[in-house]
Amino acid sequence: MPLTIEQQAEVDALKRSRNQTSRSVSPGMEEHLHNAYDVLDHGFIRVIDYMGDDAAICQAARVSYGKGTKSVSNDEGLIRYLMRHWHSTPFEMCEIKLHVKLPVFVARQWIRHRTANVNEYSARYSILDREFYIPASESLAAQSAENSQGRGQVLSGTEAERVLEILRSDSARCYGHYEEMLGVKDGKLGLARELARMNLTANVYTQWYWKVDLHNLFHFLRLRADSHAQYEIRVYAEAIGKVVADWVPLAYAAFRDYRIGGVNLSAKAAECVRRMIGGENVTQEDSGMSQREWREMCDALRL
Amino acid sequence: MPLTIEQQAEVDALKRSRNQTSRSVSPGMEEHLHNAYDVLDHGFIRVIDYMGDDAAICQAARVSYGKGTKSVSNDEGLIRYLMRHWHSTPFEMCEIKLHVKLPVFVARQWIRHRTANVNEYSARYSILDREFYIPASESLAAQSAENSQGRGQVLSGTEAERVLEILRSDSARCYGHYEEMLGVKDGKLGLARELARMNLTANVYTQWYWKVDLHNLFHFLRLRADSHAQYEIRVYAEAIGKVVADWVPLAYAAFRDYRIGGVNLSAKAAECVRRMIGGENVTQEDSGMSQREWREMCDALRL
Amino acid sequence: MPLTIEQQAEVDALKRSRNQTSRSVSPGMEEHLHNAYDVLDHGFIRVIDYMGDDAAICQAARVSYGKGTKSVSNDEGLIRYLMRHWHSTPFEMCEIKLHVKLPVFVARQWIRHRTANVNEYSARYSILDREFYIPASESLAAQSAENSQGRGQVLSGTEAERVLEILRSDSARCYGHYEEMLGVKDGKLGLARELARMNLTANVYTQWYWKVDLHNLFHFLRLRADSHAQYEIRVYAEAIGKVVADWVPLAYAAFRDYRIGGVNLSAKAAECVRRMIGGENVTQEDSGMSQREWREMCDALRL
Amino acid sequence: MPLTIEQQAEVDALKRSRNQTSRSVSPGMEEHLHNAYDVLDHGFIRVIDYMGDDAAICQAARVSYGKGTKSVSNDEGLIRYLMRHWHSTPFEMCEIKLHVKLPVFVARQWIRHRTANVNEYSARYSILDREFYIPASESLAAQSAENSQGRGQVLSGTEAERVLEILRSDSARCYGHYEEMLGVKDGKLGLARELARMNLTANVYTQWYWKVDLHNLFHFLRLRADSHAQYEIRVYAEAIGKVVADWVPLAYAAFRDYRIGGVNLSAKAAECVRRMIGGENVTQEDSGMSQREWREMCDALRL
Repeated sequence: MPLTIEQQAEVDALKRSRNQTSRSVSPGMEEHLHNAYDVLDHGFIRVIDYMGDDAAICQAARVSYGKGTKSVSNDEGLIRYLMRHWHSTPFEMCEIKLHVKLPVFVARQWIRHRTANVNEYSARYSILDREFYIPASESLAAQSAENSQGRGQVLSGTEAERVLEILRSDSARCYGHYEEMLGVKDGKLGLARELARMNLTANVYTQWYWKVDLHNLFHFLRLRADSHAQYEIRVYAEAIGKVVADWVPLAYAAFRDYRIGGVNLSAKAAECVRRMIGGENVTQEDSGMSQREWREMCDALRL
Repeated sequence: MPLTIEQQAEVDALKRSRNQTSRSVSPGMEEHLHNAYDVLDHGFIRVIDYMGDDAAICQAARVSYGKGTKSVSNDEGLIRYLMRHWHSTPFEMCEIKLHVKLPVFVARQWIRHRTANVNEYSARYSILDREFYIPASESLAAQSAENSQGRGQVLSGTEAERVLEILRSDSARCYGHYEEMLGVKDGKLGLARELARMNLTANVYTQWYWKVDLHNLFHFLRLRADSHAQYEIRVYAEAIGKVVADWVPLAYAAFRDYRIGGVNLSAKAAECVRRMIGGENVTQEDSGMSQREWREMCDALRL
Repeated sequence: MPLTIEQQAEVDALKRSRNQTSRSVSPGMEEHLHNAYDVLDHGFIRVIDYMGDDAAICQAARVSYGKGTKSVSNDEGLIRYLMRHWHSTPFEMCEIKLHVKLPVFVARQWIRHRTANVNEYSARYSILDREFYIPASESLAAQSAENSQGRGQVLSGTEAERVLEILRSDSARCYGHYEEMLGVKDGKLGLARELARMNLTANVYTQWYWKVDLHNLFHFLRLRADSHAQYEIRVYAEAIGKVVADWVPLAYAAFRDYRIGGVNLSAKAAECVRRMIGGENVTQEDSGMSQREWREMCDALRL
Repeated sequence: MPLTIEQQAEVDALKRSRNQTSRSVSPGMEEHLHNAYDVLDHGFIRVIDYMGDDAAICQAARVSYGKGTKSVSNDEGLIRYLMRHWHSTPFEMCEIKLHVKLPVFVARQWIRHRTANVNEYSARYSILDREFYIPASESLAAQSAENSQGRGQVLSGTEAERVLEILRSDSARCYGHYEEMLGVKDGKLGLARELARMNLTANVYTQWYWKVDLHNLFHFLRLRADSHAQYEIRVYAEAIGKVVADWVPLAYAAFRDYRIGGVNLSAKAAECVRRMIGGENVTQEDSGMSQREWREMCDALRL
């Protein structure tokens, strides 16, 4: 369980609070608000706050005086149009603030998405908790033979055992020494926290508040919920995706159709497709594409 | 009155809506929500939505599980500390969305603040209204003799009359021709809207949705509510400032103390101040500063 | 001719200067450096400075100690891979700085691309020149009947004459009054420049320095060199595109193949394409797509 | 020595290259180009490329056709004016690209500066080197008693010995296990690199290309070359500062005077200063400031 009893009590208090507002409210999102959804072995995501809903996207696109909504079908068409034609600004009019607990090596990938606001728990100021990500056995994958930044088959038996033993013991030993250097136990004058932290391994958990607009969140989800993303960040993206689906159902459906499930064809690939539809038997050799591009196109179109 | 009866009715409907939320709510801001506050002769600002309050700043700075608030005095001290030491990320955790109606030449200054989200009314897609900014007579200032980008004394008499006559008649004539080119009146096949708009003068009103986080809003207010800002944008900044004061009273008070009312001394100026406090009679000549810098320092410290 | 003799002399002096550097140099770009390329009737683009070349993209992607280049074919493959898989950061490692002269209504579209650095000629500080965009007769298009933000057929005869007459006379009259209010001619105490400028029409020319990285420039070109972009900004995008093609030929070729000439299929469209390639006769009715989406897909694939 | 012989040879080759350009060149910067300047025990900074110089700042501020320079004294006055009045865009017209080798815990602070372009060495794709930051004995500081995110006195004797022993042995053991899991030595099928890296401690070195404009670099230097910054990032900021001083000497001097050496007074503090200069004996009690603010003001003004 990632939350302590005290933390859960604080969250529950927020969950129970009922305030009146004349802002727009997303009923689907209110259900999720404050809940900590488990990710990995000690991590979570939870929504702290949000601004806007599907109607707010339309309202901004129309620069309306009142609600953006004319009718649901009308809004759906507009949202699909905006997504299809790469209009970004109306989607920027929705905002979400998340509290996330995640391993440091995942945080290092995540932070590369620059158009977001972040407050991270400070290990200069505070002492990190004794919590490390140890992969489940089904996630212990070997280096991929084909893809230099991917995973291959799952390790098993002694090999898997050895990896888990290393990860567990090194994390624990490093953390023990972190505490020793800080003088946590014996109360002696300890090493500065900003220095001691350098002894922690990259699977230690950190946490942050992360606030982002919907357009940039979709960009994050497109890259990080993708099958090429590292598993350990993908599960966070998937957990966030579930929440977003209930927050802005029309926008999320358009995002799924045009981005997640969409296919980008190069000019060369589009020409091949045109010829194929015309009944021609096109091969990689006469496609003008490299083997790799050809394979990627066939995979994308499931040919 | 900048809103039509229909627009006011839409706004009133939003104003009356009461929704339940377990998000944090700023009572001061709820009062302002949706209201259109007049600025200049046809413009306004109105708050469409907001996220967060003073407590949210503390909550993010502490990466809290529950509310950020420990006690009001505690929060005040933290917020002042964050502002004093140029911490920006906790203030980024609050967000505001405004609907603004403003002359095009003001919009052109405003848009230079890049860290914000904007949806502007499209004159490619729609026809702009017949509304122009005509300065009040007390704003009809001559070019400053000292400051090459400022104003001097107010024009009066025939001179002022002539300026107003020009502004009124040119705006009206250009707009009439805009409508003629569009074929608005006679229904004939008209010029494309994206072309016709080029005949409008820069005092025509446009409108947009503008969304920004509190840190970047403070930056905007510091530059645009400043006495060196052009009057026509300053009045917008001041109107927004009044709303922000009720939204996040602690943060706004800190902002006023450290930024709006604050004084930046250069290393040279700080050295002069130190000598003056020590009882020395420092003059511009032995200050190491140029005449202009010396005068700016004296003005800032009201010496 | 958009440059005065004095301006041309200054440009020529820069063009003749030969400096030694151990930075990387793009021979193709050196040819273009400083030259003003005409756009519209009084506008231009000219390259002031640049950083990086194709090799710099590879060098950054590889975090190299030396030059990024291993071999041209090797670099080409890497650059195509990066473009195909939406890697943005290596392309951000190239930068370009342009001097652009453009009508204000074009500047207002352009400035919406926020991830760029801009210094615009200040009409608070200086007096704008008497130069206005007057469309060539082949650009005088009627409002499109199908596309609410597009153009239809070209106007002709009396209609075209009337439009040109309006644009010419209103621009000239407004500018004349601008000068009168400023007291330019009679030397009388004039209206502040920051106020007088509001009487100018949106086809008046302004100019700015615009600096942007290659990734964001590609994004600009994708949207603004597109057939749906307004003609008056498209010609600027096209002029810039020609320069970029000589600056980073490999990156530009990849950009053309994957972005400019590329086709984005939604999940629904991809499924239709798969069925069509399998020999099925798919119609809009059983495609699951709206009429508009169906037509857009057929257009994109030239079916 | 942080560079291998092969790496040094690649750097030397770049250093020797002499290319002709008609771009502006900063002679001071050409000297630094490509050189690796040591920072900490295995780190370095080196300039890969740059754009612009002091004249380029003036050229952009004036939107010039030719060189920005009128005269050096003229340029100096303009640059000081721009810095004093918080004009940011002319400084954004200069750009620098650095190659930096730095410990991961330093990289985690650094990356929080979002307005920059980064390509980091990928530990998903490649294997990190066996290099760790081990503090010099004079940097082994205890936690500060007053400042919860700062350092106090230096550790010595057995205490220091123990800390160094821990840091050395844990880094080495974790790295050894990293290699074992990867199967580096025995060539067995190894764990995916993206997983194995999680066993490395935060003092392992990484490297990246970092590109930033001068305005944002100054912001970085102001925060990170400050005495409150952690020593391990401050030394990087200082090394960069030395290079910048030779690149844009006028801008750097203005930055030192107005930002690094400058003092920000709150409205309350400015009022105290005014009273003190008037000869009044002001104390903390009647200053309206908290003890902490009072002390910070006295420190800043060296009273």
